[in-house]
Amino acid sequence: MTTPPIRLAINGASGRMGSALLALLRDDPRFELVHAVVAPGSVDDGQPIHHGAALRFAHDWSGAPALDVVIDFSGPAALEGALTHCLAHGIALVSGTTGLDAAMEARLDQAGQRIALLRAANFSLGVAVLTRLLRNAAAALPGWDLEIVEAHHNRKQDAPSGTALALGHAAAEARKTTLDHAAVYSREGQTGPRAEGSIGFAVVRGGDIVGEHTALLIGQGERVELGHRATDRSIFARGALQAAHWLSSRPAGHWRIDDVIATPRQVSAHHE
Amino acid sequence: MTTPPIRLAINGASGRMGSALLALLRDDPRFELVHAVVAPGSVDDGQPIHHGAALRFAHDWSGAPALDVVIDFSGPAALEGALTHCLAHGIALVSGTTGLDAAMEARLDQAGQRIALLRAANFSLGVAVLTRLLRNAAAALPGWDLEIVEAHHNRKQDAPSGTALALGHAAAEARKTTLDHAAVYSREGQTGPRAEGSIGFAVVRGGDIVGEHTALLIGQGERVELGHRATDRSIFARGALQAAHWLSSRPAGHWRIDDVIATPRQVSAHHE
Amino acid sequence: MTTPPIRLAINGASGRMGSALLALLRDDPRFELVHAVVAPGSVDDGQPIHHGAALRFAHDWSGAPALDVVIDFSGPAALEGALTHCLAHGIALVSGTTGLDAAMEARLDQAGQRIALLRAANFSLGVAVLTRLLRNAAAALPGWDLEIVEAHHNRKQDAPSGTALALGHAAAEARKTTLDHAAVYSREGQTGPRAEGSIGFAVVRGGDIVGEHTALLIGQGERVELGHRATDRSIFARGALQAAHWLSSRPAGHWRIDDVIATPRQVSAHHE
Amino acid sequence: MTTPPIRLAINGASGRMGSALLALLRDDPRFELVHAVVAPGSVDDGQPIHHGAALRFAHDWSGAPALDVVIDFSGPAALEGALTHCLAHGIALVSGTTGLDAAMEARLDQAGQRIALLRAANFSLGVAVLTRLLRNAAAALPGWDLEIVEAHHNRKQDAPSGTALALGHAAAEARKTTLDHAAVYSREGQTGPRAEGSIGFAVVRGGDIVGEHTALLIGQGERVELGHRATDRSIFARGALQAAHWLSSRPAGHWRIDDVIATPRQVSAHHE
Repeated sequence: MTTPPIRLAINGASGRMGSALLALLRDDPRFELVHAVVAPGSVDDGQPIHHGAALRFAHDWSGAPALDVVIDFSGPAALEGALTHCLAHGIALVSGTTGLDAAMEARLDQAGQRIALLRAANFSLGVAVLTRLLRNAAAALPGWDLEIVEAHHNRKQDAPSGTALALGHAAAEARKTTLDHAAVYSREGQTGPRAEGSIGFAVVRGGDIVGEHTALLIGQGERVELGHRATDRSIFARGALQAAHWLSSRPAGHWRIDDVIATPRQVSAHHE
Repeated sequence: MTTPPIRLAINGASGRMGSALLALLRDDPRFELVHAVVAPGSVDDGQPIHHGAALRFAHDWSGAPALDVVIDFSGPAALEGALTHCLAHGIALVSGTTGLDAAMEARLDQAGQRIALLRAANFSLGVAVLTRLLRNAAAALPGWDLEIVEAHHNRKQDAPSGTALALGHAAAEARKTTLDHAAVYSREGQTGPRAEGSIGFAVVRGGDIVGEHTALLIGQGERVELGHRATDRSIFARGALQAAHWLSSRPAGHWRIDDVIATPRQVSAHHE
Repeated sequence: MTTPPIRLAINGASGRMGSALLALLRDDPRFELVHAVVAPGSVDDGQPIHHGAALRFAHDWSGAPALDVVIDFSGPAALEGALTHCLAHGIALVSGTTGLDAAMEARLDQAGQRIALLRAANFSLGVAVLTRLLRNAAAALPGWDLEIVEAHHNRKQDAPSGTALALGHAAAEARKTTLDHAAVYSREGQTGPRAEGSIGFAVVRGGDIVGEHTALLIGQGERVELGHRATDRSIFARGALQAAHWLSSRPAGHWRIDDVIATPRQVSAHHE
Repeated sequence: MTTPPIRLAINGASGRMGSALLALLRDDPRFELVHAVVAPGSVDDGQPIHHGAALRFAHDWSGAPALDVVIDFSGPAALEGALTHCLAHGIALVSGTTGLDAAMEARLDQAGQRIALLRAANFSLGVAVLTRLLRNAAAALPGWDLEIVEAHHNRKQDAPSGTALALGHAAAEARKTTLDHAAVYSREGQTGPRAEGSIGFAVVRGGDIVGEHTALLIGQGERVELGHRATDRSIFARGALQAAHWLSSRPAGHWRIDDVIATPRQVSAHHE
């Protein structure tokens, strides 16, 4: 292709996802990395982004050049800075930051009217496919009991995982209900029989499990099990780049990973 | 409902599936069983279909009354008799008989121009959903390696199961290839690396396993696993009745279980 | 064999397990059923135990003949009656009743000094083997994170299952700790990192799942998964008969299912 | 500890396992690496083993200093050289090389009379535990059908994996038979019913799966599933070092990984 590379910035560039993105970007001709933001006070601030690189880590957006898309894996405060910059300059934003308060959620909701915005709890293409399949199955087998089991490493701080919750939301929507109404997050002691129409969650923690999610649809005498296993964290960074590439040519709006996998050529490109 | 019951005949009525159908039909007001065919020479021939029943097992179609749909789980020869009868009288035919020769396959192909015909290797609704999801995933993740693992009881005579092969056909079609071209049925000794684009099969046999099928789509660092477990044989008879009910109001043509699950009301009725 | 059959009584004979035991006993020459107790007021009280049988259901132990072993699947109150009878006459007792209070637990503890007593939350031989393997693995891989996942049908009233708790106790003991100290029964919200040495439980409920238990030992870069699946309830009744047969020739004491599987010939007999 | 480090040599030092071992040895004070052999003609021959290291790769054993133990992951020819050196100097040998001919197998058999020898198809401690549990379960449930399913990456050249075969050998031995007699390596077409007492293998290939093995013991109405998943190749190198450490203080003989995990302190040390 003779198309110029997409001008990209990373927010949260010294975190685990930021580092994985920097590593992948050294070999990805689709992108030109033009800005990389770390937390103020970070030891990386002002340093070259890698040995011998001209680009240096910044702690804000004041010196950012023109760019097409920002990938954000930071925290609520840092995301606010990136969003302000994207809105001011009409830049697309891919964000994986979670745990936002209601005010920030509202700002992001509004931002979709002015910029292309893609948020996800999980950037794996496999999880995106799983989510789509679960929607399909939850609608096709409406009377079957639905359960979601997830497993992660022993340092994870919250439960269930954001991805398990996102799967639950998708299934609830497919069944014309809400997760708030349907979710059962724990079962301990005298629980009584399973509530009809509920969506149960079960949580496993141990070792260095990268992330596993299984949705079970359980009927009488048979069951359907839909699972995803991640064994390498790099899938999330790879999926985020795939999403940023795809988003850079979209109009304003709220987009989802599911929109990315629905475009066959993009998926295929990922595997070339 | 005030609709009259569907007039049903069973071909292969003293086999395992035939017996399961007879048992379910005693409590299913949607159907009136009007004819039941067993093999000539069967000890059941001429006996009441169950204690106290007026209807007796027959060994051919000569005395069959008017009817709407035939469910067939027999063998190649017996299926031929049922097909001739269905064609002569414009009766819908649901068949689960497998292992047909090319001539019989050709006759069935032509029959679809004159009667409503629904054939399946597996009448479980869960398997139908799995098949649909696998088609979807095989297309959405074109570069991922696809494997199908199946497990059945220790008396099963053939491998892989007809359902595993049907899943393979569906996946191959979704990837614009054929199972003949893509299938790898066994791996033993010096196999060399996995052929790109192939669809591998693995077979487990043991105990009284009713039937389990898992399709794996395996990428770099992640995988999607789509599985179905049957724990009770009655699911196949229940699904066949569901299919017969659905087919009785369709025009001539070749129909699939997938068409049945695509009609939301029917699926829901199944679970009431 | 020319050994006379074992004289057996069943306590809780009209419950689900009781009925399954009665069905198996019609074809099991190892046993002679001589007494069968149901709850006072039961519609079965005074009826023949099955069509044409001479033996009738009783509601207490007053008319019980001489016997060798009682199998009990009842409730706390009914178990008390059976235990009193066994102690008075030196009869062995196999019990699967759970949910006892401290006083009843103490009585059973003492009873082991006078009669042969075998209690279990789960009479499946497969679960007995799983329990033994889990003990072994928990000791051999002391630093690996241990999690127990169980799945049961949607009518189950409590969580985790008694079998999951029994597995947890066995694993805790193998690691020189107690389940009270190690167990984490639910994870929801901000849980913080997994506590080292803890044993986590996860619960799935749906459909008609008979019972599934998986113990995961999760290390760095690898994991061991030990699972049991029950697909047919009759395994519990079959295991209880196996246990009663084995217990009928033991001295007083507290015995476990694990003692039964440790006797190779018995296990083999079960499969003949 | 004030014990001097174990003097170690690596045979096959530029292969995948060799590289993993070199990486781990940079941070492992238990060992002093004193010799590292690559294939004659390798580009690594004569180079420093890593940037700035004094030790250089050699292509034979002529210049090897005094040492305690050799770890070998090479090929049949290279193993022969290492074995000759170990025999000449009474050095312990840990080897993971497979695919040897009968003559070489015979030489290794004899070598166990003079040096401490530990060979394994798989150096994961988890696999060692799985093997032990499988032996236990295969003996405790003698009438249950036994199947072994394995999954590996799409570049693997042979099937079933050496580890699957080793599991099969262990199970066959526990059941007083041999794998030669019991193994069924593929099932395709009209197989007939499962042969009683057989051990079936099923093979999955795809993506970058590091290695997964599941043994199923399948009875009537229940089953036991014993599995191991590796998600990181470093477990094999870590286990090989563990084995070398353990073997360095043993007398001549044939040792197994199972002997290593049977020594509680060693296992515990691995996890510190």
